[in-house]
Amino acid sequence: MIAQSQVKWNQDALRALRVTRGFRLEDVDPRSTPGYDGDKHHGEVDLRAGLDQLAQYQERLYAASRGGTATDAVLLVLQAMDSAGKGGVIRHVVGGVDPQGIQLAAFKAPTEEELAHDFLWRIEKRLPGPGLIGVFDRSHYEDVLIGRVRGLAEPREIERRYGAIVDFERRLADHGTRIIKVMLHISPEEQGERLMDRLERPDKHWKYNPGDVDERARWGSYMDAYQTVLTRTSTDEAPWYVVPANRKWFARLAVQELLLETLEAIDPQWPKADFDVEHEKARLKATL
Amino acid sequence: MIAQSQVKWNQDALRALRVTRGFRLEDVDPRSTPGYDGDKHHGEVDLRAGLDQLAQYQERLYAASRGGTATDAVLLVLQAMDSAGKGGVIRHVVGGVDPQGIQLAAFKAPTEEELAHDFLWRIEKRLPGPGLIGVFDRSHYEDVLIGRVRGLAEPREIERRYGAIVDFERRLADHGTRIIKVMLHISPEEQGERLMDRLERPDKHWKYNPGDVDERARWGSYMDAYQTVLTRTSTDEAPWYVVPANRKWFARLAVQELLLETLEAIDPQWPKADFDVEHEKARLKATL
Repeated sequence: MIAQSQVKWNQDALRALRVTRGFRLEDVDPRSTPGYDGDKHHGEVDLRAGLDQLAQYQERLYAASRGGTATDAVLLVLQAMDSAGKGGVIRHVVGGVDPQGIQLAAFKAPTEEELAHDFLWRIEKRLPGPGLIGVFDRSHYEDVLIGRVRGLAEPREIERRYGAIVDFERRLADHGTRIIKVMLHISPEEQGERLMDRLERPDKHWKYNPGDVDERARWGSYMDAYQTVLTRTSTDEAPWYVVPANRKWFARLAVQELLLETLEAIDPQWPKADFDVEHEKARLKATL
Repeated sequence: MIAQSQVKWNQDALRALRVTRGFRLEDVDPRSTPGYDGDKHHGEVDLRAGLDQLAQYQERLYAASRGGTATDAVLLVLQAMDSAGKGGVIRHVVGGVDPQGIQLAAFKAPTEEELAHDFLWRIEKRLPGPGLIGVFDRSHYEDVLIGRVRGLAEPREIERRYGAIVDFERRLADHGTRIIKVMLHISPEEQGERLMDRLERPDKHWKYNPGDVDERARWGSYMDAYQTVLTRTSTDEAPWYVVPANRKWFARLAVQELLLETLEAIDPQWPKADFDVEHEKARLKATL
């Protein structure tokens, strides 16, 4: 086992942050730190300590899959309102892992070709293979979030998608993919400050899009759409976790902890050699 | 400009390591550290300092491409004999950069479908878009290395490929991709020790392949094939760099420095806002 040094968690993040029956998004304080007793300083120390653990688990996960029998993979789905910190999570949590073990997919507005297919077509193509940690920066959930808020599809089609998503994710889970779905949850006030910061710094202008302000006007509709998503698609095979994200340090730490606890549960093992080690040593020695 | 803190380089790595006319691979000592005056300790300090610089350059490269005009990209091609340290370079150099700015492609033995196409077909699909740093873990050069040594194609076809590669890479360069081709160069003795280490550690068995010993028997043929590649395909648009790699710390530092000097030459700039900043501030304020 790889030692856990996260000392300030008072319960598993997988439990503290999980969306279960009766969950209401409006009850979550975006400034809170559910399950964690530490402050920003503790959080940063724990994040650093977790980087090594995560790198070690990932290497074992990858190695186990090379053994030929393990099909375990991890899929981290990140959804959030603009500026909630998806990019920071990818940089500071995922970035600590060997790039060879990560499969990152950022989903933008669909292309013409993608629109001509079912909404899960482009998703299927970016799924992580065995031994990899897949990270989705946005996902198929856009098709029931912006898709619903902006009326990009008929209500009946939106309705169909919830069920299609549950079936799709069950199939992935049955094949050995552990799915961690995270909504980074910020308050509209916090978003306002972050967008203003982008406007005030010339080196951040490229991150700003005038459309961001238009979407802000639809905050309530987005929260309604998220609530429906959380209610309809948080399953045993693919649970949702709502991570309060006004405090960036907590959002990063919490996503890291969700990954660590998931990998700890998989507990990947170094595969046994499928060759005769002593024989290979002798062959190699003959070449030295 | 981003300050360079690599103090122990006595000349640009882009110059010290470059393959130019008359280059002979057999003249390169795999234990040497061309262009660098420091020892392992200096190298590790410089590598750490370089991580931040590289991350900053990469962010600017990406930002500049979002501005819509810059098409600059970087393509790092890594070729080497087994165990020469490609994986370590990816982990310790590329791993320091935001994963969102990296496009990593590992090329294994081609599939049936890939073999049915021209050898550059699968390569084209994995090229980095504007603003990205592409990293090829093996590449189209396999088709003139193992392809030649193991006779996987007719000599005439192998011959054709050198010219096709030069034309292909010129086209990429014309579109704004800076190509850095690196051969990590170890001695057969060093490889022997590294393979033995894999055999002696159960947590490394998964990295060992009995075929590695068979390839060792063809070391001379591989060096001949590399020499031809270096002679025929090191061009102004896409130069080769031979990085002595018996010392892992130097190989990592040298590849990092090649990337840093290349990005410094591009000198990417934050793009100007394509919207009225004051107007947007006012719109945003109205929502606070």
